[in-house]
Parts: sequence; C-alpha cells; structure tokens
Amino acid sequence: MRIKIAFTVLLIISLMSLSFIQKGRQKIVFFGDSITELGVKKGGYIDLLNNQIIRHGKSNQYELMGAGIGGNKVYDLYLRLERDVLSKEPDVVLVWIGVNDVWHKSLMGTGTDYDKFGIFYDALVQKIQAKGIKLILVTPAVIGERSDHSNPQDGELNLYANWIRKYATEKKIALVDCRKLFIDYNAKYNPKQLDKGMLTYDRVHLNDAGNQLVADAIWESIQSML
Amino acid sequence: MRIKIAFTVLLIISLMSLSFIQKGRQKIVFFGDSITELGVKKGGYIDLLNNQIIRHGKSNQYELMGAGIGGNKVYDLYLRLERDVLSKEPDVVLVWIGVNDVWHKSLMGTGTDYDKFGIFYDALVQKIQAKGIKLILVTPAVIGERSDHSNPQDGELNLYANWIRKYATEKKIALVDCRKLFIDYNAKYNPKQLDKGMLTYDRVHLNDAGNQLVADAIWESIQSML
Amino acid sequence: MRIKIAFTVLLIISLMSLSFIQKGRQKIVFFGDSITELGVKKGGYIDLLNNQIIRHGKSNQYELMGAGIGGNKVYDLYLRLERDVLSKEPDVVLVWIGVNDVWHKSLMGTGTDYDKFGIFYDALVQKIQAKGIKLILVTPAVIGERSDHSNPQDGELNLYANWIRKYATEKKIALVDCRKLFIDYNAKYNPKQLDKGMLTYDRVHLNDAGNQLVADAIWESIQSML
Amino acid sequence: MRIKIAFTVLLIISLMSLSFIQKGRQKIVFFGDSITELGVKKGGYIDLLNNQIIRHGKSNQYELMGAGIGGNKVYDLYLRLERDVLSKEPDVVLVWIGVNDVWHKSLMGTGTDYDKFGIFYDALVQKIQAKGIKLILVTPAVIGERSDHSNPQDGELNLYANWIRKYATEKKIALVDCRKLFIDYNAKYNPKQLDKGMLTYDRVHLNDAGNQLVADAIWESIQSML
Repeated sequence: MRIKIAFTVLLIISLMSLSFIQKGRQKIVFFGDSITELGVKKGGYIDLLNNQIIRHGKSNQYELMGAGIGGNKVYDLYLRLERDVLSKEPDVVLVWIGVNDVWHKSLMGTGTDYDKFGIFYDALVQKIQAKGIKLILVTPAVIGERSDHSNPQDGELNLYANWIRKYATEKKIALVDCRKLFIDYNAKYNPKQLDKGMLTYDRVHLNDAGNQLVADAIWESIQSML
Repeated sequence: MRIKIAFTVLLIISLMSLSFIQKGRQKIVFFGDSITELGVKKGGYIDLLNNQIIRHGKSNQYELMGAGIGGNKVYDLYLRLERDVLSKEPDVVLVWIGVNDVWHKSLMGTGTDYDKFGIFYDALVQKIQAKGIKLILVTPAVIGERSDHSNPQDGELNLYANWIRKYATEKKIALVDCRKLFIDYNAKYNPKQLDKGMLTYDRVHLNDAGNQLVADAIWESIQSML
Repeated sequence: MRIKIAFTVLLIISLMSLSFIQKGRQKIVFFGDSITELGVKKGGYIDLLNNQIIRHGKSNQYELMGAGIGGNKVYDLYLRLERDVLSKEPDVVLVWIGVNDVWHKSLMGTGTDYDKFGIFYDALVQKIQAKGIKLILVTPAVIGERSDHSNPQDGELNLYANWIRKYATEKKIALVDCRKLFIDYNAKYNPKQLDKGMLTYDRVHLNDAGNQLVADAIWESIQSML
Repeated sequence: MRIKIAFTVLLIISLMSLSFIQKGRQKIVFFGDSITELGVKKGGYIDLLNNQIIRHGKSNQYELMGAGIGGNKVYDLYLRLERDVLSKEPDVVLVWIGVNDVWHKSLMGTGTDYDKFGIFYDALVQKIQAKGIKLILVTPAVIGERSDHSNPQDGELNLYANWIRKYATEKKIALVDCRKLFIDYNAKYNPKQLDKGMLTYDRVHLNDAGNQLVADAIWESIQSML
C-alpha cells in the first residue's frame, strides 16, 4: 500500500515537473531578413544567444527558432506571419526588420514608403499581440559603418528607426535599439571612418563582434522580460 | 393531400423567387488604385458601367461598389482585402492593379519587385477565391501613350501584364486586358506619338475616351460571366 | 627741383588711383543651381550681398553676377563654364553645387555618382584656376531641415560635403561651409524637428533667414579674401 | 633639261605617294563604354573588324583604336574627349554610348536625364566636327534580349535611340542602328524569349554572335563612308 502511494506521489511529481518543463520552455521566434537568416548559423547572433542560455543552465527555459529570409521587407513579414511564425505558437516574437525597406530604394527601386512601413509594421504587431504573444522590436542597425553620419542611407535609417522607437514607447513594447548600439560603438571604436569591418563584414551583415553585440543586447532584453 | 402538394409547390416557388432576388443582385467590388478611386466619380468608368446597366434595365441585377485608393500597389490591396472587400460580401471582385508597382520604382524608389508582385497577387486571389467569390483580373493600362514602345515604363508594364495574362490563363480567371486595349487603340489613333490626351489626361489617369473604353470592356466581361 | 618732386608725387597718386580703379571693381560670378538662380531676385542671397556692399560704400569695388540654373548638377556647370562664366572674365567665381547631384538620385534616378562628382568638380576648378581666377567653394546646404540626422539625404549630403571640404583644404581654396552653417543653425533653433521653414521654405530653397545667413557668410569670405 | 623634268616627275610621284600614305591610313577611334572597352580584346567587335580589314588586304588603309571605358555615360565622353580622342588626331570617331545613361537610372540612381543626354551628345558631336573629323553614331543595343518588348529598359532605350536616329538624320551623320539590328535579330531567332545568350552573354555585353553582328554593320558603314 505504502509503495503504491509513494509511487503515485512520485508519478505526480514527475508529471508536474514535466509540465513545468513543457510550460517553462519559452519559445522565441526571431522574425526578420538575411541578418536573422544568418543568425542561426554557427557563430550567428541566435546561435550565440543559445550558447549563452546553455552556459547559464537555462536551456530548459528557452527555445530559440529562426524565421529570417534574405531580402525581406516589412510587408514580406506580414505576408508570411501565419505560416512562419504564428503556426509555431511562440511565446515571444522578436521582429527585426527595416534594412531592406530603406536599402532597396536605391538598390533596386523597391523599398518601402515611410508611411506604409508604419502601416504594415503596426498591422504585423497587432496580429501578433492578438494571439497574446509577447514582442521584442529591434531597430535596423546599419548600412555602412562610418560614424560621421555620411553613410548614404543614414538619414532614412534614422527616420525609420525613430518611427520604431516612438511606436515601441507608445505601445509599451520591449525595444532593442540596434541602430543606437551600432552608432555608439562606431563613434567610439571607428575613428578611421571605416565603411565596414567593425560590426559588419560588408556594411550590413554581422561579423563576430556584431553578432556578439546583438546577442548580448537581446539576452539582456529577454532576461528583463521573461 | 392536394392542398399539401399545392402548398409545397407554392412554398418552393416562393423560396426560389426569394433566392432569385437574393442571388440576382450581384455585388461587384472594384478593387484598385487611383484609377479605380476616380472610377466612381461622375463620368468615371464605374459610373459609366452603372449607366449602361440602368440603360439595359438590369439595375436589379448588379450592384457596383468602388474600392480604389490612390497610390495603391498589390501589397496594399492584400493588406486591406478583409476590411474593404471581403467584409462587403461581394459576388465578384475586379482586381485592377500594377501601375504603381511599376511606376513608383523610378518615381520614388518604392515599386514592387517582379517576383513579389506575383507572390502578393496570387495570395490576394487565393484569399478571394477561398470565399467562393468570382474574379475579373485587369492588366495595368499605360504610363505614357506613345505607341512606338518608347514610354519609359513600357518594358516593365509589358512584363507585369504578361505575368497577369499567364496567371489568368493558368487559373482560368476572367481577364480584361486593358494594356492590350490601350496599346491597340494608340497604335491606331495616335500616329503623332502623343504622350497623353488619347485615353488619359496625364499619361496614367483616364479621360472620357479612356473611361468609355474600359467600361465597355468590363461590361462585356461581366455579361459573358454572370 | 620742387616741381620735379611735385610731379613725381602727382604721378604716384595718379598711378595709385588708376591701379585702384582697375583693381577695385572685382567681378564675382555666382555659379550654381536653382538656389543661385533665385539668389539674384529681390531678397535673394546675391541681392542681399549687393545691398551689404552698397551699405559699406564699396559698390565701386565689387560687381556681382548670377549664373545659376535650376536643376544643375556639377557636370552641367562643366558644360556651360566657358559660355556662362569664363566669357564674363570674372576675378572670382563662387561655385555652389551638389544638392541636385544627391537629390536627383531618388527623385528621378539621375543624380551624380560620388566618384564622378569629384572628377567633374576638380576638372571645373582646374579650368577656372588655369585662367588665374580666384575661387570660393560652397558645400550643399540641406534637403530637409530636421536636426536629428533623419532627413533622407543627410548621409549623402554629408558625404559630398566632406569631399568638398577635403578638396578645398588640400587645394587651399576658400570655403563657405553652408552645410555646417545650416546644420548648426537647426541644431540650435529647430528643437521641434521641422522639415522646412527654418532656413528654407520647401526643404531646399532659401527663405529670408536662409538668404541672410548665406549672404553674411559669403560677405565674410569675400572680405577676408579680397 | 631632261634631268630637271625627270626630277620633277619623281618629286611629284614621291609627294603623291607620301600623300597617299598620309591620307590612306585612316585612323578610326571607337569612343564608348564597357562594350567598346571589351571590343578591342581578342574576338571583340573591334578585333573582328581589324581581322576583316586584314582579310580584305586593307590594313594599310585603316588604323583602329579603342577608347572605351566601362560605366561611361555621354557626359563622361564629353569630359575625356580632348585627352582620349582629339589628341589622337583621328579621321573618324565612332560614338557608341547610351546603355549606362539609361541603365544606371534604376541600377544606382545615376542615369542621364533625357534632355541632358541630347545636350551633351550634341556638344560632343559639335566639338568633334569642329576639328573636321568624320563621325559614325551608334544606337545603344539592348539591356535584356527578350523580343516581346518586356525588358525593363526597353521603353527608355527606344526613347534614347529615337533621339540619336533623329539627330543623325538631321545632321546627316552616318548611323549604325545597333538597337534595330539587335531587336530584329531577336525577333527572328529568339522565340523562347531568352533574356540573354543570343547576342549578349549577360543581357548587355556582346557574345561572339553579337560581336560579329556589330563588326559587320560597322564594316559596311565604314566602306560606304571612306
């Protein structure tokens, strides 16, 4: 009899802890463009973040999932939200978009109008929030790393980043301000006004230092949030 | 017993006529850009179409509804499909889009990539068809009316129109080929290679002759369909 | 003997005054785009400069001449240098160009490549210097007046202005740094981040305050030079 | 007396042959962009033309000289006319320009305005004609080889080619209409609407068939001219 009770207790505890593990493991989807597509590769910012989670012994608490596609703009995210994000039933979605919305204007004439960037961004966020999912918004970092405000897209990146900052504040959504982080870093460490090679290898995509900077900033944001 | 049968027959007839009335007034929503936004104004192509319906004594059969917004591109239609079209529970949706997807490339660097034009167009059509709604697709007409293939956007308009033609054929969807209609008209009546003033007043937006040409073509398409 | 001395003195005075007349009326040609084309109108920066010269009683020393044409880029100046500037045999040429070289990239796809801007600018300067004519170079001021570095063309204006600054320093040519003047002014007086209305009426062309700021800066440069 | 006559005859013959040598070897400079830069390489259109001249035993009559630089637009030719062409004292200059003037609009926002294309083109021609040098003008061929008028730059290439055709006719200057040649060729041999691989290897630069077509057309033009 006692054995039976003991076994039952054990079973309940086991199931509880299992349930704890299952609920505990917060699924975070990283939704973005090529920077995020590369982020899941070895040494990428999502991979580094995962290592950090393992190092802190919290791999039973977080599950990271990449959903980045090269060349994506905000309306591409809107189009594939259901299929690539909501269907995964995440607890948190990190949205990092904007570089191509600005860059593709001069690169191929297919950037995103400033007003429509806001309209699609808001529609995206509302659809995610409607599912009770938490959000982390990220500002587009850089197209060119010169720190004297002379990168051709600096004006527009600042404009679009300003919009995201204001939106995040108004909507009380967590923000990782990569644009500010990258500008501050280059102001400090890039006196030679190098165009690339500080936090990116090609003016846009992250090198090791860039991946580390981003991983650290997101890690901080996740910890203060969950 | 006979009374019962008679009553049943009467009931069936009543229901049928009711169903006829309900089904009879086909609601057609015109979904597009500024050309369609202007189409509902007096003398616009939707207004002319409505007059034609009245003249033919068929105003109890068709209800026309404009849903055009200036500057819209295919992804703008996708964004507002639910709110501006599906919520109206139409029987038919006419989709006329593409001019801004091409034009805004050079005008403000915010046109639509060729591949994404197709992806959004298809997503739009699928969402409409999923509701059992019939479709009429329309090719973008002109940006400039010279008939010697020297309007700056001629190449891209042909490219995007070709995509729509192929898509309509493959999906067996009704097509009103405005691009072809306008080119044929100018080949015939525009030997002086005027840039505007034939079917448009400003290279893009319809003048009286343009509105009439479009209204006639859509009228024909509607009649062969419904 | 006394007669001889008196005669010599007279001769010297005569020669001095002759030399004064000849050297005195310096012809300054203002070579640029629409900003300079508007500069000769009442209240324009060249008109204000002329008033200043009259007020200082120096109208017998300076002759100002406008040579601005709307929409001009650096290679347009190069094309019309002989006809519109060198043929006037000026003592000083002020070159103010660059706004359209940057702006027309996004406005109509016909801006000037960064490297070619430098090549044409240098060719222009060399042709002017080969005639023994003095130069004043002016940096392009603004396209949009927000002071938070979020005007779309800020990055490129800074890039092209940097080139002119470096070139003027290397070649030891007088520089009026309008870009810096306008940015500093807006940093101080435009906390509301207005897009226009501070020193321009339309983001680019000078209002009264703008014309005054420019006239004052050029006046200072002229005085320290001639 | 006889000796004198003999001597005079000899002198005349000598002078005639000298004059023949001097007049005989006509120097033709090919002035253009990357297509012409590649034209001097083995198998390039200028190389093929040279082989043709040797085959016809006329290498003592013609001297061919390449002056093409990749990325050049009409104003780049204007800038380097003196240095790269006039200084060579050619008898004939072939001007083949226009592809980049159109292409760079969408490629990098630095194409050439239609009106300025004409202004620089005319200035270039006038400077060459002022030296008594003969001209051959060539229309820009293709950016994309589809023959159904759906290459994105078709409209503008036709527009700019039309300008050159009209100009050549008005000024009575020899014309090699490469645009027409390439379109006709593709209309005949490119039913599959291939984008490249017919006369170009990358939509713009000539493959073997393209180099041959161009060499033949220029050879014909040179023979009817000189």
